[in-house]
Amino acid sequence: MMRSAFAQPLFTLTTGPVDVYPAVSRALSMPVWYDYDPAFQNCFERVSLKAAQALESATPPLILQGEPVLALEAAAASLLSAEDMVLNLVSGVYAAGFSEWARRYSRQVEELRVEFNQVIDPVAVDAWLSRHPQITVVVVCHHDTPSGTLNPLDEIGRVVKKHGKLLLVDAVSSFAGVAVTAASCQADLFITGPNKCLGCPPGLSLVAVSDAAWRKIEANDAAPRASVLSLLDWRDAWSAEKPFPYTPSVAEINGLEAALDGYLQEGPAQVWARHRLTAQAFRAGIQAMGLSLWAADESIASPTATAIRVPDGVNEAQWRLRARECYGVMFSSGRGETLGKVLRVGHMGPTAQPMFAIIALTALAGALNQLREPQLDIGAGVAAAMAVIG
Amino acid sequence: MMRSAFAQPLFTLTTGPVDVYPAVSRALSMPVWYDYDPAFQNCFERVSLKAAQALESATPPLILQGEPVLALEAAAASLLSAEDMVLNLVSGVYAAGFSEWARRYSRQVEELRVEFNQVIDPVAVDAWLSRHPQITVVVVCHHDTPSGTLNPLDEIGRVVKKHGKLLLVDAVSSFAGVAVTAASCQADLFITGPNKCLGCPPGLSLVAVSDAAWRKIEANDAAPRASVLSLLDWRDAWSAEKPFPYTPSVAEINGLEAALDGYLQEGPAQVWARHRLTAQAFRAGIQAMGLSLWAADESIASPTATAIRVPDGVNEAQWRLRARECYGVMFSSGRGETLGKVLRVGHMGPTAQPMFAIIALTALAGALNQLREPQLDIGAGVAAAMAVIG
Amino acid sequence: MMRSAFAQPLFTLTTGPVDVYPAVSRALSMPVWYDYDPAFQNCFERVSLKAAQALESATPPLILQGEPVLALEAAAASLLSAEDMVLNLVSGVYAAGFSEWARRYSRQVEELRVEFNQVIDPVAVDAWLSRHPQITVVVVCHHDTPSGTLNPLDEIGRVVKKHGKLLLVDAVSSFAGVAVTAASCQADLFITGPNKCLGCPPGLSLVAVSDAAWRKIEANDAAPRASVLSLLDWRDAWSAEKPFPYTPSVAEINGLEAALDGYLQEGPAQVWARHRLTAQAFRAGIQAMGLSLWAADESIASPTATAIRVPDGVNEAQWRLRARECYGVMFSSGRGETLGKVLRVGHMGPTAQPMFAIIALTALAGALNQLREPQLDIGAGVAAAMAVIG
Amino acid sequence: MMRSAFAQPLFTLTTGPVDVYPAVSRALSMPVWYDYDPAFQNCFERVSLKAAQALESATPPLILQGEPVLALEAAAASLLSAEDMVLNLVSGVYAAGFSEWARRYSRQVEELRVEFNQVIDPVAVDAWLSRHPQITVVVVCHHDTPSGTLNPLDEIGRVVKKHGKLLLVDAVSSFAGVAVTAASCQADLFITGPNKCLGCPPGLSLVAVSDAAWRKIEANDAAPRASVLSLLDWRDAWSAEKPFPYTPSVAEINGLEAALDGYLQEGPAQVWARHRLTAQAFRAGIQAMGLSLWAADESIASPTATAIRVPDGVNEAQWRLRARECYGVMFSSGRGETLGKVLRVGHMGPTAQPMFAIIALTALAGALNQLREPQLDIGAGVAAAMAVIG
Repeated sequence: MMRSAFAQPLFTLTTGPVDVYPAVSRALSMPVWYDYDPAFQNCFERVSLKAAQALESATPPLILQGEPVLALEAAAASLLSAEDMVLNLVSGVYAAGFSEWARRYSRQVEELRVEFNQVIDPVAVDAWLSRHPQITVVVVCHHDTPSGTLNPLDEIGRVVKKHGKLLLVDAVSSFAGVAVTAASCQADLFITGPNKCLGCPPGLSLVAVSDAAWRKIEANDAAPRASVLSLLDWRDAWSAEKPFPYTPSVAEINGLEAALDGYLQEGPAQVWARHRLTAQAFRAGIQAMGLSLWAADESIASPTATAIRVPDGVNEAQWRLRARECYGVMFSSGRGETLGKVLRVGHMGPTAQPMFAIIALTALAGALNQLREPQLDIGAGVAAAMAVIG
Repeated sequence: MMRSAFAQPLFTLTTGPVDVYPAVSRALSMPVWYDYDPAFQNCFERVSLKAAQALESATPPLILQGEPVLALEAAAASLLSAEDMVLNLVSGVYAAGFSEWARRYSRQVEELRVEFNQVIDPVAVDAWLSRHPQITVVVVCHHDTPSGTLNPLDEIGRVVKKHGKLLLVDAVSSFAGVAVTAASCQADLFITGPNKCLGCPPGLSLVAVSDAAWRKIEANDAAPRASVLSLLDWRDAWSAEKPFPYTPSVAEINGLEAALDGYLQEGPAQVWARHRLTAQAFRAGIQAMGLSLWAADESIASPTATAIRVPDGVNEAQWRLRARECYGVMFSSGRGETLGKVLRVGHMGPTAQPMFAIIALTALAGALNQLREPQLDIGAGVAAAMAVIG
Repeated sequence: MMRSAFAQPLFTLTTGPVDVYPAVSRALSMPVWYDYDPAFQNCFERVSLKAAQALESATPPLILQGEPVLALEAAAASLLSAEDMVLNLVSGVYAAGFSEWARRYSRQVEELRVEFNQVIDPVAVDAWLSRHPQITVVVVCHHDTPSGTLNPLDEIGRVVKKHGKLLLVDAVSSFAGVAVTAASCQADLFITGPNKCLGCPPGLSLVAVSDAAWRKIEANDAAPRASVLSLLDWRDAWSAEKPFPYTPSVAEINGLEAALDGYLQEGPAQVWARHRLTAQAFRAGIQAMGLSLWAADESIASPTATAIRVPDGVNEAQWRLRARECYGVMFSSGRGETLGKVLRVGHMGPTAQPMFAIIALTALAGALNQLREPQLDIGAGVAAAMAVIG
Repeated sequence: MMRSAFAQPLFTLTTGPVDVYPAVSRALSMPVWYDYDPAFQNCFERVSLKAAQALESATPPLILQGEPVLALEAAAASLLSAEDMVLNLVSGVYAAGFSEWARRYSRQVEELRVEFNQVIDPVAVDAWLSRHPQITVVVVCHHDTPSGTLNPLDEIGRVVKKHGKLLLVDAVSSFAGVAVTAASCQADLFITGPNKCLGCPPGLSLVAVSDAAWRKIEANDAAPRASVLSLLDWRDAWSAEKPFPYTPSVAEINGLEAALDGYLQEGPAQVWARHRLTAQAFRAGIQAMGLSLWAADESIASPTATAIRVPDGVNEAQWRLRARECYGVMFSSGRGETLGKVLRVGHMGPTAQPMFAIIALTALAGALNQLREPQLDIGAGVAAAMAVIG
């Protein structure tokens, strides 16, 4: 039974945007307040403090009014100056992309690069930093989503701090799906967004900033001010007593509050556990069917997204479209270097539930079986996943 | 009966954000799609085309993923280059604010300035441009919201075009509330947002770009690329066949579609008429009570917001807070030069209905009467408003 | 500016259904559970207990799956038997209507009747019951909505109890808008619904049943069983451990929970105060314009709805239609004997806020002024209302 | 990973209530109108006419304000009189239950009964009616949900009409999931509800009434009038010109309109096809795992719900609870005679999509495997289902 690709999808099992939690959906439809209504100013402060709790940030994280691409660019523009020597740890497409912004704003950018199906070795970082003491800022992407691999962030953080460098972390697609916080990795700038594992729509980002980072940004004459790229403009905006640099996205803030409430009430440890279990079950399933992970080793695969290596001779776009048309299930493609080489399945927020691993396995294998011989053994895949799920 | 200022407001009669139309509210709670889901790509194209119809733009306007402050900064950064001589027509705080961005990106910025309770005279613009042929770009804010005054935009557009200059228009708080489109004023960049008279939450902006403007932007090496400040990045994104530079705000796009549907179905002329009638009634009411418009003459007062001159000896913040606490009605303060000098009432989108003029009159007069003698004659105000409404 | 009568109303200031609280609206769109899902069984018990708290009922009130007309008919069918002599206290159309059901199920129905713009005198009830000791059940409608008059229910309750009779109370349109509970009036059957002052949509009713009433119903062979008219079927359904006689209206139950939460959190006394203030202001306003209350004396006018006497020569239907078309405000007509003689304005739930009194005054007077001379002095009306509101 | 049974379910794959379509959910949160608002009166007529189209009813079906239990009881009370001889065709628990109502209102009720895992044979009906010409009304339940079996309704209708009897059909859980309408089966009373295959919450029912049935009801002095059990009261209520007997459930009506729009736009044939495919796939899966259908033969199994025979030694309540706790999937138990003997899975409305068959198979088999040896081969089950789905 073919469905139109333009009909509504039934399951969005992508690497984000994902569908939102029902409570978030309802919160988006709350009455929209004036941003200077005392009730909203109060709300913005309350949400900022809940975000601080979730991110384990000593000070309220900035809530920026755009998806994390805004936050990443703003972070580069704000933190970096013409004196900075940046080390960018590159294990994937998104990390590599950051180099462009870093070069725009700093004196020099070095990359410590691994294959995009590998992760960064903290020992290598330690060695590299020992050889390059002039580095001022280290940048790392925790979960490079196009690869589905998870860097050992907390260990990297320890190394960077040992060397006394500032650490800028992109935790966009890992935060709230795996045990990581601004505190755990000692980030100076810890950037994430609500539209991945928190289960919100895209439109906001969160940036936890350390005292050291604030000092550097304040001292940076080139840091944007009176600009949407400014972090400084938003520094005090969390307080109900202080003005907003410009109008916050009121509806999205309401959605964020519902997501943070859900996250804190369910309990981060429980939320992480269901991300991990869903991903484990899914990986067991695809491997049992003879498909391979993109990640060089399962131990580095992310619990929030799985990148599957596209079998030889298979057109990845066709594969995904078939899953969408026949089963109503939407998956993600690769990006950049991994485009065409991987099909990606998200395990994020409301879809980080083991039953979605079953749906994903069945739909992707069913679609592939329609496109080629030999046929994958879907039953074996599901059985292997169920053995993990219990 | 005093209400807590933190309790929910009953009526948000501000100059934006305003409450949204019920259909917009429901659209915000639609399932959130993956941005590369064919259904969403199709939706984004469809919404872009509806926006083109509403803005009377020859090509689909850009839908940027941030409130209009993003669009204004991006427009300055994209259009202007170090060769440009800009004439900024300044009749209020927002127009004046644009000079900062213009200076950041151009060689020189000249201002043709009037008092902030006046509007720009097209004849003066004509004369000025005749004397300064080196000007390349003219900038005008149609409705300078902090003043509640409406510039004669279509006439200004004719003058600017007669001189062959590019015209950048900020129509953020006038579009969809008054008869103006990108075509009517011959704008090269026509910037607006859905969170004013279209009745959406803040979080998006719309930018209609003329062919001439695109040529200039493309030729501008300094125009941002790979940046949230880029217009170029989004040029082709309206097409379902083309990629997004980064993730669009899916939920907000659904809201925007509902707002555009409502606007086009009710009919722009009808929508403008109720904005006009609401503002007329309101102005009649406040003047009948002895309050004054900020605008030097009623003929230049905007149909989408009214700025009332704060009577001598009255603390504007106290006045607004009292209206919020006693009647649950939220109004706007002034901004910048008009802060403390005006109290502003929006007539925008869902609140552009004559009955809201009555609520506004009653609440603001009631609050003022609580704070001081002599007492305003609320009955006279309402009677005058009703005489207009019929 | 005439609006189509088929366009959406802007303000529903009727005697019910009224618009719902925003939180209720969102609750209606929660995922719909299976009725035997443990989470829903738990929810149903929790809502029943919250209802018990709000109604001050010793046992959880029944939540019936239909608007209060169902509850009233079911109450008559369940409580009354061929042996019963019923005294129905009739001060209005709804009370009179109950006699029809009472006659269907009892031996005899007596009426103590007053003019429909008067209320029942407890002293007269006392005297009547002294003369007619054979009466077994007394029935009273607290707020006879078609008249907008409020019977002295607690006093009547004391008289009925002094005589040892069972008391059946229709508090559909008074509960949650005025200080009355099942306990305060000593009702044996206390019937109300969430679609009036609680601010829910129509579709449910609440019935608090005393132990004495349960004993009588259980002993009544004619009481419906296995029927939608049965109270007995639902007796234990509040408990998460017990089955439902048939499927409860899951979405409406979610709405009811949101309404009860709002009511209990705002505080009943505060909710009643704003109903009272809104009605007082409204009554002051209409009287200041020379219109009259239907109620013979303002002291018996209900705080939850006001019935205005239609001036001679005015067609009430035309009057209401004009208010709907010109101002987008919907009012209620009379019913039965009061049809054509009164126009009714509700002050219920979310509309029990003083500003809605202003809207109502303005719209009804504006509409009347369009239809006839002499002109009402709307200003005087609003001024009088504001003098009450403060 | 055990979940609390009180946590929200992830998938409600029951035989109803089921979760609603997203568009229905949004419609439930529309502003609630006064029932006599012209816009709502117009809406009610419009929805009635859409229902007529969906049910293929010559006249607008009644929309009753309660779930179908109300409609069934009201139908018995309205249609049947002390002269009637009723033949009730009983193939399951719900059909058997109707005899109780039929006996309450008619002279005599005969049953043509088959085992509850069988369906009615039209030939037997023909023979029976030939032998009992005094029968006036024949009653049949199309899909006896507790058995998951589907009677050959159109054939039965032809037989009943051949004998000139009135036909009362309970199509509550089949309509909109299988090719049946009031016209196709020649029903005189065709009763269904929106809370099954139409994907609405419980709270309304639909009754299509033939001219012959209206004549009989009108002639029936015992037919309820001025009662929630009355069909007559609602006869003309569909018309925007006519009053409602009592307040309709406004929010639910909005939901119903969204559901009918979706049904008619997707196309009934397409909707039926996905119900059928989902059920086929599911049945293939459970049989491949060695479980049995309750239905004596797969050819009589309903496309809208599957009843699985509980294996010997398995506690059905435990089984379902385990599926709820471990996988967040909610199933239905049996009812009456089938209670404890079957576990039921709905394929209704939004869950009538093949991927839900996979979820159901996996969750029920996973739960059973946790409770006992031998282990079901889940892989084989899913593979068999996928072979059907394609």
